[in-house]
Amino acid sequence: MAIINASTLTSVALNIFKGIGISNEEAGIISEHLVGSNLRGHDSHGIMRIPRYVEQLEDEYVSWDKHEILSNEAGITIIEGHGVNGIVAATRAAELALENTKQSVFSTVTLRNTTHIGRLGDYAELIAKKNLIGMIWTNVGGKFVVPFGSGERRLRPNPMAFGIPRMNNDPIVLDISLSSIAGGKVDDFLTKGKSVPEGWLIDSKGDPVTDGTTFRGNLDAGALPLGGMQFGHKGFGLAMIMEMIVGPLSRAGCTKRLEAKPGITSGNEKDGGGVMIVAIDIEKFTSLINYNDEIEQLLTWVKSAKPLPGFSQIYAPGEIENNSKKNRLEKGIDVPDSVWEEILVISKK
Amino acid sequence: MAIINASTLTSVALNIFKGIGISNEEAGIISEHLVGSNLRGHDSHGIMRIPRYVEQLEDEYVSWDKHEILSNEAGITIIEGHGVNGIVAATRAAELALENTKQSVFSTVTLRNTTHIGRLGDYAELIAKKNLIGMIWTNVGGKFVVPFGSGERRLRPNPMAFGIPRMNNDPIVLDISLSSIAGGKVDDFLTKGKSVPEGWLIDSKGDPVTDGTTFRGNLDAGALPLGGMQFGHKGFGLAMIMEMIVGPLSRAGCTKRLEAKPGITSGNEKDGGGVMIVAIDIEKFTSLINYNDEIEQLLTWVKSAKPLPGFSQIYAPGEIENNSKKNRLEKGIDVPDSVWEEILVISKK
Repeated sequence: MAIINASTLTSVALNIFKGIGISNEEAGIISEHLVGSNLRGHDSHGIMRIPRYVEQLEDEYVSWDKHEILSNEAGITIIEGHGVNGIVAATRAAELALENTKQSVFSTVTLRNTTHIGRLGDYAELIAKKNLIGMIWTNVGGKFVVPFGSGERRLRPNPMAFGIPRMNNDPIVLDISLSSIAGGKVDDFLTKGKSVPEGWLIDSKGDPVTDGTTFRGNLDAGALPLGGMQFGHKGFGLAMIMEMIVGPLSRAGCTKRLEAKPGITSGNEKDGGGVMIVAIDIEKFTSLINYNDEIEQLLTWVKSAKPLPGFSQIYAPGEIENNSKKNRLEKGIDVPDSVWEEILVISKK
Repeated sequence: MAIINASTLTSVALNIFKGIGISNEEAGIISEHLVGSNLRGHDSHGIMRIPRYVEQLEDEYVSWDKHEILSNEAGITIIEGHGVNGIVAATRAAELALENTKQSVFSTVTLRNTTHIGRLGDYAELIAKKNLIGMIWTNVGGKFVVPFGSGERRLRPNPMAFGIPRMNNDPIVLDISLSSIAGGKVDDFLTKGKSVPEGWLIDSKGDPVTDGTTFRGNLDAGALPLGGMQFGHKGFGLAMIMEMIVGPLSRAGCTKRLEAKPGITSGNEKDGGGVMIVAIDIEKFTSLINYNDEIEQLLTWVKSAKPLPGFSQIYAPGEIENNSKKNRLEKGIDVPDSVWEEILVISKK
């Protein structure tokens, strides 16, 4: 295991992406996003993706320059991506939402037709760091989630994120999907040759599935909505609402039976899905000092609850990731030798 | 069992509330809200509450006239309730949000210091019927929900509702709490002398609780967050975010350790909780025709999933309630004889 510090990793990644012709600015955004995932402990979404990324991006990288603004009125900006890189697009969209706060208390930017937008928490954090509330809502992801009461796949995981500013601390960041699990979680278990826990997947007859290979394979395994067999009407309901808000408002459309659109990817699917980024201007409601005071009192109250056996403490949303970031910024990031060697080889090319 | 039609029930309720000195308008709002719950099959929140309501309201009814607008700017209205009736306040707030849509794409009204606001879905539906998206977010309710990783009560159920307009149909209405169950559900089981299912409650040691009496009794039973012991970090995370948005923005404050404020009730608690009502102007994003078309295609796609044994079909959020309403408008509402007699006695007084 090599231990590499974050700035070295970022500059190696930056050079690789610049080497395949991506502009300095966009290569920087992508590199920081990937290393940001490593810092927060999500190694599977970090720099180990570089080899695959480079392969994909060499052929089909579309710069943010190609985006088109379909509408821009009253603090609402609707963007057609034309296949632009999703990480760059979501970063630019979050920045645009921050600019639009002069025009609207709920400044909003939507995206459609981009590639995969990466870790949503990043964009929520970007907004929260400027002392606004960030919300990232989507109807993206593979159509592998079953509706409540069925074992057949229909819906997407609808990843979503919220960012809450704190005055003297990293923002609170919640980054979840509305399915029991995200597809990548199943892949992680598959890679490690482990069966997945009960409560994640069911087959079309409603029986529990623990063999993760069926998930990417014969498709007769769908992810349960948040709440599972007992309270899944809630997770399913929230997913439907996200569909019905983000799909039409981003003009990406709701999830439906559709043939693949050749050439255009968006989210994980050839047939679309949209993203909606909202920045809420706290000071139109209350002072930032009062806001911060309330958040700190809530955290104190909730964290005073006695942890159950097996839990060391009550963690606020994103707190584990923030701790990992502090730790890894200081001590460096563990990179498996094979991954590091592969990256260095690519780097030399 | 008496079968009474909805309009009779409404006028009986109206006369009772007028009889204790409530204005015609406000008595009308409360009566329609209660009978609306019966129509949608939620009898426990319907007219069977009249006797208790009358007792409460005779002494301490506060009219909407007493509310105070703390701030009204850029489509954001912040209201101090001074103890006004919650059902009237939430109805008026939803109407105000509709008016404010001229000033903001996300028109918002917040409330604090009101009595219990009743069935949230009603206000979401009110907005959706005018072809806007309605969102009702709260940090109200008893502090009976455990954080993920603890068995000690800290959080509220954070009931929330969304209303989605449909052109030729009743709106889609999602009305849920972010805890596994709402407190009223436990009461329903208690009233019927039944033990509650596993997965609802745990004690401070983390053991499942099925004896509902401990919930209202010794308080060593807390409701699990949505997602339970396996995925409860998601429901807990969403509840924390609702706290951190609605608490400070409504100026009600976040949930914390607090002594009761004498004289003022809000939500179910003496120490507050706030409500945030948002109306989103769809036409600033896309046409209503396109919006409706997307919603209908999504519904067709999701409802085409084969139901599991024990499920007759896939229901959209609020669909069961809408079906009940159609049925009960036509055939009348079943009212237990004892309840109906009690109401008639009150009515004569």
